[in-house]
Amino acid sequence: MGKRVGKQSIKLDSKPKIISTYSVVGPKEGDGPLGKYFDLVLKDDLNGQKSYEKAESSILYNAITSCLKLANLKESDVNYLLAGDLLNQISSSNFAARDLDIPFIGLYGACSTMTESLGLGALLMEGGFANYIIAATSSHFSSAERQFRFPLEYGSQRHPTAHWTVTGAGAMLLGKEGNFPCITYVTTGKVKDYGITDANNMGASMAPAAIDTIKQHFLDTGRTPEDYDLIATGDLGKYGKDITLKLLKEYGYDIEKTYIDCGDEIYGTNQEVNAGGSGCGCSAVVDCGYIYKNIMSGKLKKVLILSTGALLSTTSTLQGETIPGIAHAVSIEFGE
Amino acid sequence: MGKRVGKQSIKLDSKPKIISTYSVVGPKEGDGPLGKYFDLVLKDDLNGQKSYEKAESSILYNAITSCLKLANLKESDVNYLLAGDLLNQISSSNFAARDLDIPFIGLYGACSTMTESLGLGALLMEGGFANYIIAATSSHFSSAERQFRFPLEYGSQRHPTAHWTVTGAGAMLLGKEGNFPCITYVTTGKVKDYGITDANNMGASMAPAAIDTIKQHFLDTGRTPEDYDLIATGDLGKYGKDITLKLLKEYGYDIEKTYIDCGDEIYGTNQEVNAGGSGCGCSAVVDCGYIYKNIMSGKLKKVLILSTGALLSTTSTLQGETIPGIAHAVSIEFGE
Repeated sequence: MGKRVGKQSIKLDSKPKIISTYSVVGPKEGDGPLGKYFDLVLKDDLNGQKSYEKAESSILYNAITSCLKLANLKESDVNYLLAGDLLNQISSSNFAARDLDIPFIGLYGACSTMTESLGLGALLMEGGFANYIIAATSSHFSSAERQFRFPLEYGSQRHPTAHWTVTGAGAMLLGKEGNFPCITYVTTGKVKDYGITDANNMGASMAPAAIDTIKQHFLDTGRTPEDYDLIATGDLGKYGKDITLKLLKEYGYDIEKTYIDCGDEIYGTNQEVNAGGSGCGCSAVVDCGYIYKNIMSGKLKKVLILSTGALLSTTSTLQGETIPGIAHAVSIEFGE
Repeated sequence: MGKRVGKQSIKLDSKPKIISTYSVVGPKEGDGPLGKYFDLVLKDDLNGQKSYEKAESSILYNAITSCLKLANLKESDVNYLLAGDLLNQISSSNFAARDLDIPFIGLYGACSTMTESLGLGALLMEGGFANYIIAATSSHFSSAERQFRFPLEYGSQRHPTAHWTVTGAGAMLLGKEGNFPCITYVTTGKVKDYGITDANNMGASMAPAAIDTIKQHFLDTGRTPEDYDLIATGDLGKYGKDITLKLLKEYGYDIEKTYIDCGDEIYGTNQEVNAGGSGCGCSAVVDCGYIYKNIMSGKLKKVLILSTGALLSTTSTLQGETIPGIAHAVSIEFGE
């Protein structure tokens, strides 16, 4: 039985295992510096579908089913699918779930969905409710761009602090047994809003939530930055990453030596993405690809991953609302 | 520790308690036959806000905080808030959560959100992860109408099988102790799609999911329709209710004597709502108001509630997709 530690964290005594992961990315992400860590790089970001929305749903379905295949499991072996995405009414996830014979719990946490689904999945495993659970999410540059920003055909000029939504889907399969990376702590975040109104500066809107959850994780668990080989936020990008580093130092936590942001890593400096990558798929593919594979190979032993979500909608922005953020943290450990 | 029974259900040995509920509805819902069961009936469905979206968020916030007050608890006593709604990027829930100092798990299950949040909350209680959890959801006629259908100013004629989205929010507070109604089983649904394409006939699109989850609940638990005083689906309306009754009879389950649909009950026949009520708020306020109060007064002893969601988006419909549905079931028992 897991037990509560501090205000927002659960220590998982059963140590649910991540027994397989799968990542699918678009051509641009495949061309980036982490390209070799992704399981499938699409040649065409429409993935043979008639719309970008259907393409996004199809890559999420692909990530989920491929993750199952890697573990030699069938859909009927899985007790829960936890998934969500950025599209209105999480349509990518709903339509992927329609084609899967797995009980489905739909989530919305914007770009925080990878650790939201993974953390919740780990709690359900720890509670003894499941043998296998899949946590998954996706995003697609072209479906997000036309839903949240402008029609692609406009060719709008991008703001220097704007992010590039990752085309990608990631899935993680949780199980009870075997020699695999374990989930040891789950820290669930609160919604934080420091009054950012610029939808082209999402890094700044999400940084307070990332800072709050990282700080709370340390307070709850008694751990320090030195306890981790790697601390990875989701998609703060270079500006949000700078804010996070600076403010955490002011709170007395210096994470500089081990800190990366998935959005800051996924594209090269020559790829013209301004602040960096974003979208649910950003931390999903970096966590499922780069980070998981480096854990499996022994290069990383203790990792804290946080996906970070900007909880805006086009309606809330048009109605003058600021942009709240949220971040959930999951500790993964292997080989000690 | 809860244990899995059958394919999709968990039996909760710790029997998490619903220690308080609160329901807020609009004027039209207050005028309906269940009006006296709701805790607060608004005089103005804008609730003093500048937009319908902000109004919806404000009534959700009101339901959550009032539910806490009824139990003499503070926000800091609550370990998780589980909530979602129909709006793009669940903005009602995100903005309500922003003003609450509670770790937040955002959900999207369309109109299935009340039992999705309640069922998940019950599992987290059973896992030993929380002392108190709030499960909540909302919908608003005017925010849903203009997002999913047409601008209100058009005064569009309504299809005979169309539903009327309930303006309402409901919250349930789960705890461990006390003499309160208990949650005994949670059955998590799968996404079902029988090819309905008419967004004006959501009852028919959700009925297959309701039927599947009810049938699975009986199979998993070994219970029969006679074990329940009341079986209540969320918002199938009169047409979806008829389909559910008829098809369940074909599967060998006759639930006619104890079956109601919240969407079929919430408005009077003189209120011109065609098929009946819908929206996340529909089952939320009927469950939190009418059903919970009748359980507390001893009129109902064993109840099975199912909220039912139609997982469409305007984009999926415009792209020619059919409408998938989902339903989650929660058993509530008291006084035996």
